[in-house]
Order: sequence, then structure tokens, then C-alpha cells
Amino acid sequence: MSTQLQYARLGEITEVMQMVADAEEVEQQWLINEVAAGRCVIPFNKNRNKKCKLVAIGNGLSTKINANIGTSPMHCDVEEELDKLHTAINYGADAVMDLSTGGNIRAIRRKILSESDVIVGTVPIYAVEIDLERKGKDISCMDPEALFAEIEEQAADGVDFMTLHCAVTKRSLSFLRQNARKTGIVSRGGALLYRYIENTGKDNPLYEQFDRILDICYRHDVTISLGDGLRPGCASDASDSAQIAEVLVQGELVERARAKGVQVMVEGPGHMPVDQIAFNIQLIKHICRGAPLYVLGPLVTDAAAGYDHIAGAIGGTIAAASGADFLCYLTPAEHVSLPDADDVREGVIASRIAAHAADVAKRIPRAIHRNNLVSDARFKLNWEEMFSSLLEPGKARYKKSLQNTGSEEFCTMCGQLCAMKIYRETK
Amino acid sequence: MSTQLQYARLGEITEVMQMVADAEEVEQQWLINEVAAGRCVIPFNKNRNKKCKLVAIGNGLSTKINANIGTSPMHCDVEEELDKLHTAINYGADAVMDLSTGGNIRAIRRKILSESDVIVGTVPIYAVEIDLERKGKDISCMDPEALFAEIEEQAADGVDFMTLHCAVTKRSLSFLRQNARKTGIVSRGGALLYRYIENTGKDNPLYEQFDRILDICYRHDVTISLGDGLRPGCASDASDSAQIAEVLVQGELVERARAKGVQVMVEGPGHMPVDQIAFNIQLIKHICRGAPLYVLGPLVTDAAAGYDHIAGAIGGTIAAASGADFLCYLTPAEHVSLPDADDVREGVIASRIAAHAADVAKRIPRAIHRNNLVSDARFKLNWEEMFSSLLEPGKARYKKSLQNTGSEEFCTMCGQLCAMKIYRETK
Repeated sequence: MSTQLQYARLGEITEVMQMVADAEEVEQQWLINEVAAGRCVIPFNKNRNKKCKLVAIGNGLSTKINANIGTSPMHCDVEEELDKLHTAINYGADAVMDLSTGGNIRAIRRKILSESDVIVGTVPIYAVEIDLERKGKDISCMDPEALFAEIEEQAADGVDFMTLHCAVTKRSLSFLRQNARKTGIVSRGGALLYRYIENTGKDNPLYEQFDRILDICYRHDVTISLGDGLRPGCASDASDSAQIAEVLVQGELVERARAKGVQVMVEGPGHMPVDQIAFNIQLIKHICRGAPLYVLGPLVTDAAAGYDHIAGAIGGTIAAASGADFLCYLTPAEHVSLPDADDVREGVIASRIAAHAADVAKRIPRAIHRNNLVSDARFKLNWEEMFSSLLEPGKARYKKSLQNTGSEEFCTMCGQLCAMKIYRETK
Repeated sequence: MSTQLQYARLGEITEVMQMVADAEEVEQQWLINEVAAGRCVIPFNKNRNKKCKLVAIGNGLSTKINANIGTSPMHCDVEEELDKLHTAINYGADAVMDLSTGGNIRAIRRKILSESDVIVGTVPIYAVEIDLERKGKDISCMDPEALFAEIEEQAADGVDFMTLHCAVTKRSLSFLRQNARKTGIVSRGGALLYRYIENTGKDNPLYEQFDRILDICYRHDVTISLGDGLRPGCASDASDSAQIAEVLVQGELVERARAKGVQVMVEGPGHMPVDQIAFNIQLIKHICRGAPLYVLGPLVTDAAAGYDHIAGAIGGTIAAASGADFLCYLTPAEHVSLPDADDVREGVIASRIAAHAADVAKRIPRAIHRNNLVSDARFKLNWEEMFSSLLEPGKARYKKSLQNTGSEEFCTMCGQLCAMKIYRETK
């Protein structure tokens, strides 16, 4: 007996489930049923030392958000990453992923795991690739044993969820027509496995030996996040055959993970025009048997670099309102550079706005209640009460503090010509 | 013969229509048909001296965006407003509205009209209210003749479109149940007319004497923007009977305006949960006979003050993708203070992202082409080519300039671990 999924199937309520049910303000029995059915996951590694803020992700729950942090080969400053970690958590991220590819990757991961108050995810193939690169080798030389050893090590270290691009296979790649896409493959894990498959003639070991992954993840209760290595990298590549073919393989693997009692979620697009988001989300949710869906963006335009946190918030809202459960933030630095702490802050805030807007549509009571607190305070022109219920009160409070209206009641937008005041004082 | 609508009905192509068709990259005959049917408007006052960037707003065209500027009773600095005007235009606003309520309102309006390179809108009742206030009076003392004189004066000054809250009537207000709304009336014009109606027992002169408005607007070819004085001010007030009742009156007035050859568009919400936007837009478009729809936001959460440009961009995208034609921006200062030039810039950019994302969904060729330019350049890792096609290149270019990657090709996000590079160099 090892995973929350197995406990839930046996109807056994764990301490973790109790804590999550309380935090989510849902009935314990309902949550157990959702976890047992695989429609919700509770990513929490058994080896995780620190008591962190637990969350469940999936059907019927508030939308969660993830912040990616981590060094790159070209910019590696551990203190800066820890600053980004704490910024992400302070501004309300539910999860962080350590995507470090520069410096001492293992040490950075362990530091982040020990300092993080929220659940932590990783992409183990990055460490394997960087190891090879440092030896002057290419991913084509990868020994699958090294990849499984890395997964085992990270699981033992306490990583709560892992992105594994198991569905980038010969079969799904057969739908990727040469030169049909504008931007080819834009997932790092996806591109690495594509290169491995093309250059070795072998299939993806994460697919071929999926049962080994399941064994490791079962033992430590690591939640698998089935990566979308073939996600579209621009609007014109969206919803193509390769993207959908990968979803079909993801669906197959969701069933296999569940059969072995392993918690699993699915990753989705990517760049995607507004009118394609709802049907994609519905299709993925259907093919993947209602598994929790984790989306990157989606980015509703290719042309907003510098402001991709906004383009991502637009897509994320539509995706979550259509059924996605977990949003990976985008920062203003996306497509341009590694984000700094300011970018992380902006990204988390934009993503929380998206999640909250979707939660109102999803009828999550807490989200509706927050809206009502703000609106009631706004009608009373009670500024401090209004600020205290905002998703991020700092900026509004600061802007208001700059004003000298001569009155606590008004703001410089309307002064006495405040519509609500005129309305309230009539009759 | 006076309005573009009348010329279009007679199949007569004007210079204005030719210029607009060229700018919009659409067939002249198609545009004439749309203008004749009232599904598109070309707001351009005959008295407007300056040659400004002309646009058409409506069905089949790219989504346009408006930036509100103007003084308030509590913050009045004409130079600052002109700075905001030029900022809005430089960052791509298609229209500005001068909502000034502080200082010499007439002089400020004329200054803005003379300096603006884009079409200009106003809300004439503000000037009437401020006049009364300065005389120590209340809107209840309003002489309807003063209101019509103001409309006439502003039309003669060259205002291209005017928000007139003609549909706030005894009949629509009869659906506004006391205490049923959390935030009452949040439109300034709506609140003023509500007070006038409640305190005088008379109906709205803008409705009762709508034909006088039509005469003025016909003579100068002012496009009427039928205000939504009863728009919801928070999520919980959205789609209520009062809001919808006003739409019914707007629909009636659209027909009357068209019958007299006056160009007319309709204003829509407001605060609105994500899942209510599409059906609202479709309903308004249906009831208002396909008239161009101008939306304020919609704001998909009440709790994002300080970041309402993002919440507005989310709602604006969904609204425009559902059929709205014209987006009024929101700035980070919304609900807190009068925006400064930085707020204006942020608001315009967020709104342009929303419009562009919706235009991709609307299959506007230029929008798709822009996405493709960015994506092609991105795949080639050609940074300068990528920047030059962005909606706002400044921020991305600046972020990239801060990097020292030792290579022109990479960015600090991935370095050599660039997925597109790995993909491209495989095989």
C-alpha cells in the first residue's frame, strides 16, 4: 500500500486526504471518490520531509497554478532561484517545477525541495541530457538505465510530480509530417526524445518500459505528469495530427497507470487559437478518461512576447473554464529569457487571475465568495476592505496611496461623480 | 445626404469608404454592403478637421480598441491628458474617448480633437452634469435643452462617436429591483439618468426625444454609441433582468437610428463571469440586429484591481471571439485611480493582445499573417525579425538586450537546450 490512489480505492481516508479535503473545503468522501476514480490527484511524495501546503488537482476543485523556476546553462545563480521560489510561493503558486539545467542540478533540486512550502515537480530527462552534454555526448547516446536511475533518484529525493514524455513514440511521431509544422517540436523533453528515436532507431524507453516507471512512482507515490512533447509551438501548428496522436497515447498510459495504482495527470497545449481551446480540452479530457489536465498557457497569440503572461492568462482562463485543472504560468520573459523574480511575480499573479476567473465559471464557492467580498466593499467605497480581498492587494493599495483626493471616500477616477455613490444616494 | 450609411445604401462609394476598405484590406463592395446593412460603422464626423486614421468597426473586420482618457474633478492636468492621448495612439489605440470631467472641459475636448490622429468619442452628459454641479445644482435640475445643446455643440466640434445612454428608461429601470444588485449602477451616465428619472418623475429625454438626437447625428454623421447604463458592476449582478431589459431598448433604438440613416453601435458589459460572455454577446448581437458591439472589458473577475488590464483582456478576447467588434481598454488603475500614461500604455497593449487573439479566431488574414511572421522568425531563431512582428516589440527587445549569452542564437531560457534547435538539427 503506497499511493493516495490505492488508499482511496480501499475507502481508507489518509491524513493527507483529510488535510486536503479541509483545505479545499470539500467533503472527504467526495474527494476520496474522485481520487479513487483518478479524476483528482494529490501529488505528495512519501519521502518529502517538509510539511508543505498540500493540494488536490482535478475535477470539481479550484484551479491550481504552477510556477517554473530553475537555472539554465547560460544563467545559473542558486540564490536567485531560491528568491524566485519564495516569490512564487508568496504570490500564491500552488506548485513549482524545478527545471534547472545549469550548475549542480542535483544540489539545486535538493535545496529547492528542502525550502519549498509547496509541492515540487521536475523533468528528469533534463539532468540526463546535461550529464551527457558535459561528457561531450549527445542524447542519442543516452543509456535508458541512466534515465531510470535518474527517475529513481529524484523520486527518492522527494519530488512530488514528474513530467515524463512517455507518449512521444514512433507511433505518435509517425503523424509528425516533415515540414508541415512551422515550429517543429518546442518541448525540450519532446525534442530530446525525438532525436533519440530518430538517431537510434529505438523507441522511447519511457514508453517501452513504462511499467518500470510505474513501479518507481508507486513506491514513492510520485504523480506522473504525462508530458506533451508534441504540443504546438505556434497557432498554425495547433490541433494537428501529431498533437492529437500523442493525446491518444497519453490516454492509453493513463489507463495503465491507474491499473497499477499510480496517480497520473496529463499535460496539454501550448500555442492555440482561442476558438480551438475548448474542443481540445474536451477531447483530451475524454480520451484521457477524465485525468486531471495540466496546461501550459495555452498561448492565444504568437505575437505577444514580452507580455506572454497576459496571452497565457487569456488561454488559461478559457482552458480552465473548459475543464483544465492546473495552469502552468507564463512570465513576461517567455520566449525571450530566463525569468527573474519580477517576471515570476507577474507570471504568478496573471495565472492566479486566470485560475480565479475560471473558478467563478466553475462555481467554486470560495472564488464566488471572494468576488462578493470585493464587490460589497466596493459598493460601500470601503477601500481597505476591498483591498484585503483582492487576489494581489499590493499594487492597488500602492496606487491609491499616491492619490490626494482630500477624501477617503473617492478615488481620482470619478471623484464625486462616482456612479455607485449617485445610485446609492438617490432615494 | 450626410452619413456614410446613407451613401452606402445608395451604393455610392465615398472617399472615406475607399480609404477604410484599403486600410482594412477588404473589398470595397463588401464593405459598402456591411455599412448599408448597419453591421459595420465608420465613425468619422464631417466636421473633423484633421485627417485621422479611419477605421470601420463591425462584422468581418479586425477588432478595434479604444482608450479612455480625460481629466477628473480630482485630477486635472491638460498636458498629462495630451501625453496620455499620444501614448494611446503610439501604442496602437484605434480610438480614444475624452471623458474629461475636470477643468475647462470644452477646451480640453477641442484640444484633444485637434491633436488626435484617431477617431474621438465623448459622453456629452458629463459636461452637463459638471455645469450643474458648478452651479451648486444636481442632475435632477437638468434642463433637457441643455443636454441637446451640448450634443449639438460636440457634434459641431467634430466628435466622431458619442455614448448616449438612451436606453436607461422608466421601462428598463422597472426591471432593476431594489437591493437585488450588489453594486447598483456603475455607469456614470446610467447613474445620472437614473437619478434624473427617479427625482423628476420624467422619463429619459435621450429616449423620449431620440429623434432630435438622430437629427443632430445625421447632420454631422456622428455615430451613436448606445450606452449600457445598467451594465453589471460585479460578477454577481451579471446578466440580470435590468441589464437585459436595457438591451431590448437598445435593439429598438438601433432600428430607429438605421431608419433615419444614422450610424449606430451598441455598448455592452461590464463585469461578467467567463461562462456568461458568449451567450450575452450572441444575445446582444441578435436583439440589436447585428449592430457593431462595443464592450467595456468584460471583466472576468471582481478581485483583480491593480491588474484589471489583464482581467479585461481575458474577457475582451472571449467577447471579441464571440462577436464583439470594439474593445474598450481597461488599465491597471481601473477601480483605483485615474490612469497615468504608464497605465494607458499597459492598457492599450493588453487590449491589443486581446483583439489580436480574437482576430486569429475570427480568421482575420492580417492577424494570422502576423502570427506566422513571428513563428517563422522564432523557428529560425532570428531575433530581430521576430521582434519586428510583435504587437509591442519594445519590452521583449529590452529583455533580450540584458542578456549576455555569448551567442546571438540562444536566449538564457534554454541555451543550447533549445527544443527547436534540437529538432531542426536532427536529420
